[in-house]
Amino acid sequence: MEGYAERLISAIKTKGNPCVVGLDPRIDLMPDFATASAHSMDFRKGVRAAIKSFCEAVLDVVSPLVPAVKPQIAFYEQYGVGGLEALEDTIRAAKERGLLVIVDAKRSDIASTAEAYANAFLGRTSVFGTHCPIYDVDCITVSPFLGRDSLEPFVSVCVESGKGIFVLVKTSNRGSADIQDQVLSSTGRPLYEAVASFVDVLGRQLVGSSGYSAIGAVVGATFPEEARRLRDLMPRAIILVPGYGAQGGTAQDAIACFNKDGLGAIVNASRSITYAFPNRAVSREQFMQAVHANTTRMIGEITHALKQVRQ
Amino acid sequence: MEGYAERLISAIKTKGNPCVVGLDPRIDLMPDFATASAHSMDFRKGVRAAIKSFCEAVLDVVSPLVPAVKPQIAFYEQYGVGGLEALEDTIRAAKERGLLVIVDAKRSDIASTAEAYANAFLGRTSVFGTHCPIYDVDCITVSPFLGRDSLEPFVSVCVESGKGIFVLVKTSNRGSADIQDQVLSSTGRPLYEAVASFVDVLGRQLVGSSGYSAIGAVVGATFPEEARRLRDLMPRAIILVPGYGAQGGTAQDAIACFNKDGLGAIVNASRSITYAFPNRAVSREQFMQAVHANTTRMIGEITHALKQVRQ
Repeated sequence: MEGYAERLISAIKTKGNPCVVGLDPRIDLMPDFATASAHSMDFRKGVRAAIKSFCEAVLDVVSPLVPAVKPQIAFYEQYGVGGLEALEDTIRAAKERGLLVIVDAKRSDIASTAEAYANAFLGRTSVFGTHCPIYDVDCITVSPFLGRDSLEPFVSVCVESGKGIFVLVKTSNRGSADIQDQVLSSTGRPLYEAVASFVDVLGRQLVGSSGYSAIGAVVGATFPEEARRLRDLMPRAIILVPGYGAQGGTAQDAIACFNKDGLGAIVNASRSITYAFPNRAVSREQFMQAVHANTTRMIGEITHALKQVRQ
Repeated sequence: MEGYAERLISAIKTKGNPCVVGLDPRIDLMPDFATASAHSMDFRKGVRAAIKSFCEAVLDVVSPLVPAVKPQIAFYEQYGVGGLEALEDTIRAAKERGLLVIVDAKRSDIASTAEAYANAFLGRTSVFGTHCPIYDVDCITVSPFLGRDSLEPFVSVCVESGKGIFVLVKTSNRGSADIQDQVLSSTGRPLYEAVASFVDVLGRQLVGSSGYSAIGAVVGATFPEEARRLRDLMPRAIILVPGYGAQGGTAQDAIACFNKDGLGAIVNASRSITYAFPNRAVSREQFMQAVHANTTRMIGEITHALKQVRQ
């Protein structure tokens, strides 16, 4: 079975860029075309229909352009069961269009419970005498706060299923300093470097033919200095870079997460791609034109900045 | 509006104990009576029916005995949409029986995303021109790894809605040492103490007439020494104590989290209450007898140990 890192790197090479489009279904901010028919439906069907309409328009634009999409599960979960039905729709639609799917879930729990999350998103859930795939996506984000034993069930499922995880190391928000930047007495270095070392060690067993591991890391584009150091500490980890675009990170900031081979990171943008359109009265075609322009601008900026890394 | 802490403390006084029963729906481990009819249904209906049958049997036993239940969302989420429908069923059934509901979700994200989680579980989601309650439970567990700004949306919703959160401070698993026990250069004290101080400060605005705050903390029964120190650092926080029972924490360990008033903590047990029955062929009545015996034994142990605290 081809590993997650190999599938991702192959997709990056095919599409010619490491950009990821984040899918944040916020119905109140969507263009009218996506929500028009939902108003006459019951709540659950309406939610599902609106999200489906919005996400499929985005996917139709971005599937030839980028290697992967990142649904943020909080924005599905906020609508309850209808939202989770819509997540299933999104995952199916993205896969049908040949995109890799990274669910941004930031899940974590003690090992016996983390195993349930790992099975749900990456593996199979054992029930009624069979092993059922549930969300069955390529990769999810996980939080390391409960320690290495809480990450191990995810690693095991990655080994069995050829899937991947991104472990939060240094998040893009300002408050990430409160815990992640705390300097440890044992090392004289910030906590995020200790987490990076966990990621590096956990990931060694999952390094494939690409030289990269299925165990990756999240490092915000908003902290390029920290990113350069983290890049060195986790040479085999693919870094998922949030914070580009609406959160203020530039292409120049984001490339701090790349290796000299021009690989080793993927850069996500959500709001600046899917919610940057002229006004809510746009037609589906006009919305898709805006998403197309936003995506190609991002791809242009990132690939331009990456030329410096390769030199 | 009565705050969460007041509702919880009132329920503890009414029931005469601070015990919480954890609901972990693991269909493969359930007694046959719960899963028998599910086999003839499609996957989603079968999952929902099995969980409903199991959880309602537990709730019928424990609702006169304990103040609150704690559904672990991972064990619902592992079954996909059918599992989340079952979570709605569990929440409804628990509320109908007068129980407080604490969803163990350990959610966290950057503030704009955390707000979606806060709305989904505790507040209301704005959609289609209205504000809809989604899960609408009393309290959820959240992770502090992303820092204080990631907790603030939860605190805001607690203020608006009279709800509560438990912030992970020192979790019950062995691996909690990896990050939570790291000694910080700035204070010479472990990270969990810094998190406790965030909890104490964030909670001040939510201290009600009970003297306790709606912003609580999770501290494992498996670490009683750490618990005594954390109890002092967060005098107003209600502590949710996992790790009692199957994870090895004793009643003696758990009471380290209580204040001298005999209040200030709730103790959870999951597997040792709901999966400790003679064999899977038990009838519904025999299962309920086992759950009853397990619950009353726990209540006996905890209330007995608590007599020392009050002396």
